[in-house]
Amino acid sequence: MQQEAKSKPTSLLSNRQKRSWLRLIRTENVGPASFRALINRFGSADAALNALPELAARGGRHRTVLPSWHEIDAEMEVAERMGARFVAIGEEDYPPLLARADHPPPLVAIKGRSGLLQAPACAIVGARNASVIGAKFAQKLAHQLGNAGFLIVSGLARGIDTAAHRGSLETGTVAVVAGGLDQPYPPENISLYEEIADRGVVLSEMPFGWVPRAQDFPRRNRLVAGMSYGLLVVEAAERSGSLISARLANEMGRLVFAVPGSPLDPRAAGTNRLLKEGALLVTRAEDIIEAMAPLIGRPMTIPAFEEPPDLTSIPPPDDMERSLVVDALGPAPVSIDELIRHTGLHPSQVSLILLELDLAGRIERHSGGFVSLLMDV
Amino acid sequence: MQQEAKSKPTSLLSNRQKRSWLRLIRTENVGPASFRALINRFGSADAALNALPELAARGGRHRTVLPSWHEIDAEMEVAERMGARFVAIGEEDYPPLLARADHPPPLVAIKGRSGLLQAPACAIVGARNASVIGAKFAQKLAHQLGNAGFLIVSGLARGIDTAAHRGSLETGTVAVVAGGLDQPYPPENISLYEEIADRGVVLSEMPFGWVPRAQDFPRRNRLVAGMSYGLLVVEAAERSGSLISARLANEMGRLVFAVPGSPLDPRAAGTNRLLKEGALLVTRAEDIIEAMAPLIGRPMTIPAFEEPPDLTSIPPPDDMERSLVVDALGPAPVSIDELIRHTGLHPSQVSLILLELDLAGRIERHSGGFVSLLMDV
Repeated sequence: MQQEAKSKPTSLLSNRQKRSWLRLIRTENVGPASFRALINRFGSADAALNALPELAARGGRHRTVLPSWHEIDAEMEVAERMGARFVAIGEEDYPPLLARADHPPPLVAIKGRSGLLQAPACAIVGARNASVIGAKFAQKLAHQLGNAGFLIVSGLARGIDTAAHRGSLETGTVAVVAGGLDQPYPPENISLYEEIADRGVVLSEMPFGWVPRAQDFPRRNRLVAGMSYGLLVVEAAERSGSLISARLANEMGRLVFAVPGSPLDPRAAGTNRLLKEGALLVTRAEDIIEAMAPLIGRPMTIPAFEEPPDLTSIPPPDDMERSLVVDALGPAPVSIDELIRHTGLHPSQVSLILLELDLAGRIERHSGGFVSLLMDV
Repeated sequence: MQQEAKSKPTSLLSNRQKRSWLRLIRTENVGPASFRALINRFGSADAALNALPELAARGGRHRTVLPSWHEIDAEMEVAERMGARFVAIGEEDYPPLLARADHPPPLVAIKGRSGLLQAPACAIVGARNASVIGAKFAQKLAHQLGNAGFLIVSGLARGIDTAAHRGSLETGTVAVVAGGLDQPYPPENISLYEEIADRGVVLSEMPFGWVPRAQDFPRRNRLVAGMSYGLLVVEAAERSGSLISARLANEMGRLVFAVPGSPLDPRAAGTNRLLKEGALLVTRAEDIIEAMAPLIGRPMTIPAFEEPPDLTSIPPPDDMERSLVVDALGPAPVSIDELIRHTGLHPSQVSLILLELDLAGRIERHSGGFVSLLMDV
């Protein structure tokens, strides 16, 4: 996978392979990190699917719900019917910066003019209850950034997101949604969504048919930030989702931009806070263009795709080793390196035990190679 | 003087000495820097006054306008009649931070509760055509900072300055004016001025009777910044006087604070620019209090009171030496150190030649030990 992500022209997966990838990533408790670990251990999605029930059982979960082939075929049909398709990491149409982020989804569903994804992207997000002025300003910035060659990424929400998409419909816009591509949200933006699917790109990592829940939005926000060189917050109240997006963007090493506002305007409380914390102050599109210029065109440093250990030849860990790892884990995230030092086990064994626990839904993976035990299992 | 500025209890000048100081500082082309150089060379203001015509003549000016003793006595009478008095640098009531700034005025006229000047000061300045919201916010911050123990310094202008004074009338406010203490400006603030002179402090370095001209305001702004640990700009358009104050404050090593605003509000263009350039963003009084806390109570580093050479025993420079210095000067400021290296003259000689040129009105002194030739002479 690493080689695929780095090199072009890309090795396309066969339809058969992609179908297996889809089944594997749609399996409960299989996230991007365990997906990669499984492919590394078993060599292919098919082999991983076969091995999965036993692995999960060893992690402590004895009923693993693999989706049926029928479900997978049905999802692929829905995609095809609406003119969407699945793009695997490493393929040409996969958003290039996202491929270099922490734990990128192995497959995303996209519809639209996928060539747009090659342009350097800037995310514009903000308050759903935006002021008229804030929305206008977001639309203007999106338009100017679009004319300067940037792809505008946002989340299709009301308010700032909507304005950002509208401002960049002509030059290139991507709506990243928190549910399936056939479940756009909110309802009042369905016609905008269709226009974006036609003239821009709509993108999701969630299954077709998936109705977005509150907890799906942070995951979507991670994609928005992961695709973009920088993320601009136009208006945001304290404790709003846009601030979470900004935090995620910052953690990923993206530039964080914010538009200032009056201290007496609650819709500026969040952006002013970001500015206090070091976000770059934006009053004109040039502020963003100038700050991003040094990044564009240069290959991004390929970050910490930490070389996964070769898992194909390790004997399954025994129960004592497994409980060593479990005992060392707790609700607070701990680094895998620390875990290896603490347990004294071989890194490959720790990786494998974590994979088992992950598949059993007993751990959570955090960015930067941290894991924590889920306590409600 | 240096000793006086550092040590307390202070050596008070006799009335007779203060009268001579006033006459010397009221002499044309005698600014704070040449005042200090003259005292250093001649030991007293009286001796300097005697020597001055010859010195100026050597610098190229043959008609030096010393104010008459009568004029000086008249000014002292006006001061006394309005209940004001002159405070010399080194005296207890001289604003303590100002004494440590670059080229502080040797005398300031003050009226009011001078004890207030001992509190740590924060300047609040901004647009004359402030918005209602901006003025309210300035007043609220001034009130909160006042309650936190800060003295509020401002310039009595309409808009933000007025609001800052009003907000801090009860806790302590200083109005620094650009004309004489008996010439407050603008007219609509005369009753506020009188209230400040009663409950706070009014302060000026300009002669009584002096009607402020446009070019006097930057000099006043320098006092505002020089007296204060930090300077807050609440609202300011591009290219406004408040930005000059902020630049001066920054050059003096003061903290510069700015209140953000919408990019679409022209009254926030200046403050947003300051924030882009590194000013500290303020949405609440705590932002200022927290940033200033580490400075308060600690003795400020006493900056670059560059040790003046002992001028008492140097023979007058000859014409060749004088023209060496003049030729080395131009309209662009050059450091005195550079000048000494370039001419190869003894530092005391360069100082003396500069003093002559200064008295003749042929050079301008800049902060940081820079001088330039005035070309319109």
